[in-house]
Amino acid sequence: MYKQISSSQNKEIKHLHQLQEKSRLRRKEGVFLVEGVRETGLAIKGGFKLKNIFFCEELFSVEKLEDLISDLNEKPEITELSSEVYEKLAYRGSTEGLLALFESRENSLSELKIQSENPLILVTEAPEKPGNIGALLRTADAAGLDGVIIANPKTDLFNPNIIRSSVGCVFTTPIATGSTEEIIDFLKQKNIKIYAAALQASKEYTKVDYAGSSAIVVGTEATGLGDSWLENSEENIIIPMGGEIDSMNVSVAAGILIFEAKRQRSLQQ
Amino acid sequence: MYKQISSSQNKEIKHLHQLQEKSRLRRKEGVFLVEGVRETGLAIKGGFKLKNIFFCEELFSVEKLEDLISDLNEKPEITELSSEVYEKLAYRGSTEGLLALFESRENSLSELKIQSENPLILVTEAPEKPGNIGALLRTADAAGLDGVIIANPKTDLFNPNIIRSSVGCVFTTPIATGSTEEIIDFLKQKNIKIYAAALQASKEYTKVDYAGSSAIVVGTEATGLGDSWLENSEENIIIPMGGEIDSMNVSVAAGILIFEAKRQRSLQQ
Repeated sequence: MYKQISSSQNKEIKHLHQLQEKSRLRRKEGVFLVEGVRETGLAIKGGFKLKNIFFCEELFSVEKLEDLISDLNEKPEITELSSEVYEKLAYRGSTEGLLALFESRENSLSELKIQSENPLILVTEAPEKPGNIGALLRTADAAGLDGVIIANPKTDLFNPNIIRSSVGCVFTTPIATGSTEEIIDFLKQKNIKIYAAALQASKEYTKVDYAGSSAIVVGTEATGLGDSWLENSEENIIIPMGGEIDSMNVSVAAGILIFEAKRQRSLQQ
Repeated sequence: MYKQISSSQNKEIKHLHQLQEKSRLRRKEGVFLVEGVRETGLAIKGGFKLKNIFFCEELFSVEKLEDLISDLNEKPEITELSSEVYEKLAYRGSTEGLLALFESRENSLSELKIQSENPLILVTEAPEKPGNIGALLRTADAAGLDGVIIANPKTDLFNPNIIRSSVGCVFTTPIATGSTEEIIDFLKQKNIKIYAAALQASKEYTKVDYAGSSAIVVGTEATGLGDSWLENSEENIIIPMGGEIDSMNVSVAAGILIFEAKRQRSLQQ
């Protein structure tokens, strides 16, 4: 038998609810909450330490639960929730019956392990919308990027909306955060060339060779990239705009640039 | 002097609020409401008939207002709103002080004017999220596509969230809607080849030649494209996925496909 909670007024439940809402509390306690089976599986696969599982037996069976954690050496604490409590806690209104509490990581640049000798990296400067960050991380996963570096993030990565919109890719992509200067230093030190996307650039993105170690850098839709990026880049690149407005959605632009680099690289194999 | 409204309880204001909220009412009355200066300018540029302007003088001056409508042969009715009334009505919480009521259009396939002899078109099947539709329309604008066709739309195009997330591109891109069968007939009749994006496809999207008249077709993230697309296509194409999950954000995927077609076409000029 597992520990059971059937009241939404329970202190632990209230605390979990706070963890969903408050970035500061997540950071202070070094934990984050994941909703959904696929996402929980990806967080386990990404090596995050699972501390607690909360499940609703009407929606998620004990067999599935035991299957999910069968490979773990260190078993999490398991709590069964009544369906009423689960529904109140399910941030996405999901009906999978599973919530999991993990230990978070630092995501510092010094911890970013780049496996490839010829890496392709995405750097995104101060992205704001969780939906855009999620889409960027899904693109990074699909492209098999060697890393995503977020400069000056506006939220913690374990925001429930980022977890949801990334479909769990936030756990499987090597991610680091840092200030603009720290990231530029990091890239220079590793001899990774910077390709900065800028509307004021004159070189078309298709005319640049991304065969060597490359970091594609995209800015915010509102302000673009600052001078330190433009001055420290190998090339400043532009996606030609043929219409009425002068910017694309940042995650679409990043996708176009990353997959052009991938296309070029696949030709050389 | 313009007509003035200073009470949120005013019937006309209540009616405008309903038009923002209710797709059915917009359709019934054949009108839609636009918020913001840039978006209003793009709707005028897109040839939509401007019926009414509502402005708040503390935020938007009479000079700017007269400038905005100076080229119009048929002048709209103009109403001045108190800042209290404007704030209640400003859906986006914007502070530009301008709302405009336009006549909508049918967006039927028969009205879609394709100017190019060698068009490049995007077809999107049943897109759901207004944010994704907006991003797709921004991409279409940037790529200078000859048209965007939406199969089985889930909402009307003049939903305030689509207007906002498309940054007004919904007014400047030639758009049509229709059923899947109607669109397939339309494309075949015009000899436009169908390239259907599908996860079960085996042909990489970079290995296909989009030089001729082409329609790139993308499905929903949840269910992909139905058989009628896959069976009526010239090729079914795939963006190779190298990660943990098996789909990208639909607007990112569409952007990658469209810009690959653009890249190929620019080489041939």
